[in-house]
Amino acid sequence: MRFTFVPFSRCAKSIPPIKLSYKNMLRDPSVKYRAHKPLTMTNRKWPDNTIKKAPRWLSTDLRDGNQSLPDPMSVEQKKEYFHKLLEIGFKEIEVAFPSASQTDFDFTRYAVENAPDDVTIQALVQSREHLIRRTVEALTGAKRATVHTYLATSDMFREIVFNMSQEEAIAKAIEATKLVRSLTKDDPSQSATRWTYEFSPECFSDTPTEFAVQICEAVKQAWEPTEDNPLIFNLPATVEVTTPNVYADQIEYFSTHISERNKVCISTHTHNDRGCGVAATELALMAGADRVEGCVFGNGERTGNVDIVTVALNMYTHGVAPELDFSDIKSLVEVVERCNKIPVPQRAPYGGDLVVCAFSGSHQDAIKKGFSVQERKRKEGDHYWRIPYLPLDPKDIGRDYEAVIRVNSQSGKGGAAWIILRSLGLDLPRIMQIEFSTMVQEAADRRGKELQASEITNLFKDTYNYDSERHKYISLLDYEVKKLDNETRHLTGQVEFHDKVVSIDGTGNGPISSLVDALSNLLNTKLSVENYSEHSLGSGSSTQAASYVQIRYRSPNDNEKAYTWGVGVSEDVGDASVKAIFSTVNNIIHNGDIELPTVQKKQKASSA
Amino acid sequence: MRFTFVPFSRCAKSIPPIKLSYKNMLRDPSVKYRAHKPLTMTNRKWPDNTIKKAPRWLSTDLRDGNQSLPDPMSVEQKKEYFHKLLEIGFKEIEVAFPSASQTDFDFTRYAVENAPDDVTIQALVQSREHLIRRTVEALTGAKRATVHTYLATSDMFREIVFNMSQEEAIAKAIEATKLVRSLTKDDPSQSATRWTYEFSPECFSDTPTEFAVQICEAVKQAWEPTEDNPLIFNLPATVEVTTPNVYADQIEYFSTHISERNKVCISTHTHNDRGCGVAATELALMAGADRVEGCVFGNGERTGNVDIVTVALNMYTHGVAPELDFSDIKSLVEVVERCNKIPVPQRAPYGGDLVVCAFSGSHQDAIKKGFSVQERKRKEGDHYWRIPYLPLDPKDIGRDYEAVIRVNSQSGKGGAAWIILRSLGLDLPRIMQIEFSTMVQEAADRRGKELQASEITNLFKDTYNYDSERHKYISLLDYEVKKLDNETRHLTGQVEFHDKVVSIDGTGNGPISSLVDALSNLLNTKLSVENYSEHSLGSGSSTQAASYVQIRYRSPNDNEKAYTWGVGVSEDVGDASVKAIFSTVNNIIHNGDIELPTVQKKQKASSA
Repeated sequence: MRFTFVPFSRCAKSIPPIKLSYKNMLRDPSVKYRAHKPLTMTNRKWPDNTIKKAPRWLSTDLRDGNQSLPDPMSVEQKKEYFHKLLEIGFKEIEVAFPSASQTDFDFTRYAVENAPDDVTIQALVQSREHLIRRTVEALTGAKRATVHTYLATSDMFREIVFNMSQEEAIAKAIEATKLVRSLTKDDPSQSATRWTYEFSPECFSDTPTEFAVQICEAVKQAWEPTEDNPLIFNLPATVEVTTPNVYADQIEYFSTHISERNKVCISTHTHNDRGCGVAATELALMAGADRVEGCVFGNGERTGNVDIVTVALNMYTHGVAPELDFSDIKSLVEVVERCNKIPVPQRAPYGGDLVVCAFSGSHQDAIKKGFSVQERKRKEGDHYWRIPYLPLDPKDIGRDYEAVIRVNSQSGKGGAAWIILRSLGLDLPRIMQIEFSTMVQEAADRRGKELQASEITNLFKDTYNYDSERHKYISLLDYEVKKLDNETRHLTGQVEFHDKVVSIDGTGNGPISSLVDALSNLLNTKLSVENYSEHSLGSGSSTQAASYVQIRYRSPNDNEKAYTWGVGVSEDVGDASVKAIFSTVNNIIHNGDIELPTVQKKQKASSA
Repeated sequence: MRFTFVPFSRCAKSIPPIKLSYKNMLRDPSVKYRAHKPLTMTNRKWPDNTIKKAPRWLSTDLRDGNQSLPDPMSVEQKKEYFHKLLEIGFKEIEVAFPSASQTDFDFTRYAVENAPDDVTIQALVQSREHLIRRTVEALTGAKRATVHTYLATSDMFREIVFNMSQEEAIAKAIEATKLVRSLTKDDPSQSATRWTYEFSPECFSDTPTEFAVQICEAVKQAWEPTEDNPLIFNLPATVEVTTPNVYADQIEYFSTHISERNKVCISTHTHNDRGCGVAATELALMAGADRVEGCVFGNGERTGNVDIVTVALNMYTHGVAPELDFSDIKSLVEVVERCNKIPVPQRAPYGGDLVVCAFSGSHQDAIKKGFSVQERKRKEGDHYWRIPYLPLDPKDIGRDYEAVIRVNSQSGKGGAAWIILRSLGLDLPRIMQIEFSTMVQEAADRRGKELQASEITNLFKDTYNYDSERHKYISLLDYEVKKLDNETRHLTGQVEFHDKVVSIDGTGNGPISSLVDALSNLLNTKLSVENYSEHSLGSGSSTQAASYVQIRYRSPNDNEKAYTWGVGVSEDVGDASVKAIFSTVNNIIHNGDIELPTVQKKQKASSA
């Protein structure tokens, strides 16, 4: 192919742009959509903070999560889910909207009656008298209970949904708060319960932050919280409306402007409409939030609530104890998928099927090296986790390493080698890895899909005649090596082929080269050892040796140099080498590149 | 239930905490994991910025995306995907790793030969000579091509994977850059192509930012970019290692410290290990990045690359044209799912099945009100989108409204009413909505699953005897209303039941109350109109009237007051009311609460 020289300036002008159809989307969306107007912040602090301790966690899986399911949970499923949440370590669980249906009321009673003493049962209710009374009724008798009311405070919600002024909203919030107070902490008959109050200005992230502070001040005055039992202001990004830094600004503003900060617990409740629910929660924690509401694996209305698993394990990988235990993430996935009837996405952080997998060759190679460096460092007393592409040790959450490296047609040498290391204990020499990975890639290409570990192992055994029993044309019966001088060894021995025993002999600078020389003489060709390496296999009394040998030979047909690898394993290093050589030579014979000589039939020699 | 008063201070002490098992996770993870050490920033600017224009987009679906699939795409699938990316409007596409396999090389050739003139084909290659030569060969003849090299720069990658000092890394980067330069823009035979160079310091987010600037300065000096064709510095969060604000800090630092900023294009390439890929990209754009690499719906190694659909549509909902066209998102989902063989998660922003659905009653109610306010505002010339819980008009991406409201057993009145409005055009009176939604909820509860719109519509028709033909025990043949005085009307007419025609008459203050009085006389009971409302249906010449009537009657068995709703639709308002009354009365008869009188068989009256 030859090209004429065309200066780029000319090229550029002659290029016709593709015309986008814009069948539905607008070329200029500013005629229909406006950016959320961010809060003006001076002297913001949160970008210099980091997360140093776990927040209070509230699971709303059974409320926000359940209400958003195409097929909500059955009562039995809610119970199972509830106990799983307890097992993980949630101390605050929003269980239902008890005033909305008998089912929700009944389940709230179940939770109240079955919660451990240190667990707070929370129920959501609109700011309306008969619904509040019914909700308190549902929670009565709990050791710890939180009544969670909400009220529209954003301009959009007040105007469109409730047709209510800011003043009316404040009055309504005070009224609801006073009612809850009179029915709970001010009612002597309710004193066996530790009553907490939670108020959500909706949708906080779309509410003028000054007004959010103002209405919450009024609620606080009506409730009169204490340091021991702070009032929870839950500040929801009911709908995610802008970038997560703006939510953090709003939280920092709220946290620095609300009075009696020590009597207030600032809670986040983020959704994921813009895919930033986790980020908004994390930046909000840096900005002063104390508590996180969300769902396991991010279930919830529309795009879901923030995924608590991700927020918690993000902390964990930074060395901060999340105080939630995801030691057995597989069983959690199993319960969540069965009850929600929505699969955990394959790429969901930490819990997804594919997230501890590496398919790319360079990634696989790096992970393999990481494990080997870590093994060395551990012996030096350094226990830090530092594996490329794996921010979390999969074992910490009950996932095994077998899943880490997987091999598709795009994988390089590392992956296949890892599989062989895990399945056969063989740590292949680098150039053998390259050769084998090419074969794996070709096989995956041919099949158009990922190879299973067992398929890769079988391919290895076939390719390298691994156990020497697959292709066994010639075998060594006995041999002896004598030292002629410092640099020369002489090998004599008997081999068997075609059911005949034949004597062999050869010389070299060691037993391996002598054996190869003897086989060259026998087979009337020139074999030589191109590469050789060995390593120990296992440890203690069961230690074995693995030997790898690459033999060069002249292929009779094309008269070109050819190379074949073989491997041998034995308790004795010398035997391992011999096995490797015979596995290689038998492979070459099997491939038809070398022929066995014809010999007279003899009596089979008895073993020594 | 009665409780003894226990002061909280005592309660708190007596509560035994649940013991977490921590089978695998560490109670104190700081012994194994350390937080990423953030860059010290002074005078950061990005938190005050917003995203005001679209970045350059690079799709790496066919490279990073494809290499991470358990079953990589076939050649045919890669071709289909490639053309879909062009259709959406991508102008830069990384198509393969052509030096890694013949398949990748061949596909790069296909892309080079089939790309429109304004589209740049990009190929990734390690910084090694023979691989670079092969890559340039694959790109030769393209109108626009980008050679993308990468090199380990993070301490972890340099030390564990490559055992290379910072100085060695710089030398290697310069060498690779000079080689690419000599083979591309410095080679006169290659001048038909607009050659761009991209360099990725890996993993940038884990590299000391000062060193990233230093190595990129060296690369820039070796390449000598121009303002017209800037050098792309792709700054990957190959693995997401910390909160997204730190990535933004790193980008801002890089952007303000690299020299000749106008000859440099800063590109992001974020992954999603901590669930913050979208946030990191957005904050990086605020911090000065010019270009975004990612995949559609966030495919890619492990947790995936950043989801370009989300970043683009987030901009769109802020009024910024993303310059990518997702008008037909359903067909995009279809292609992506078929080629990747990984489903787009049901809660994926914008593209997921469930993200424009509202199941909760209060949400449904709010959406319904939002549409009605918007309809009014539109007439006043305000075209802004302002619908609660829906940041994006689903129609803009080719999704229809039918999916918006869905009804499960947790839904309130809004949802069922919406379905009836959409399917039958009936805008139910509020108290009728409450009654009907309870029935829908009970039906959903009984079946334990979401009701389809058609099931809800059928339930409505059955419940309210909607077309009057379902339960037709008695029908009106003819009637006449006379005005007795200003406040009194007298109605006479004939009804038919049991195949007989019977005369009726009654008085009231209008035709409706007169008819109900006449039916009370006939049926020997006391019926009265408790609620009545009507609205027009459709517009223009096909306008009809819908009437709703709630009739109170005394149930004969329990002697309690009972209420039943009915609805009638007709071109004539009066007829609509009559139909509503007969639909109600027939329903009451059907339910067995009122019995028809026994009468003598008479000749059927001929119609007037």
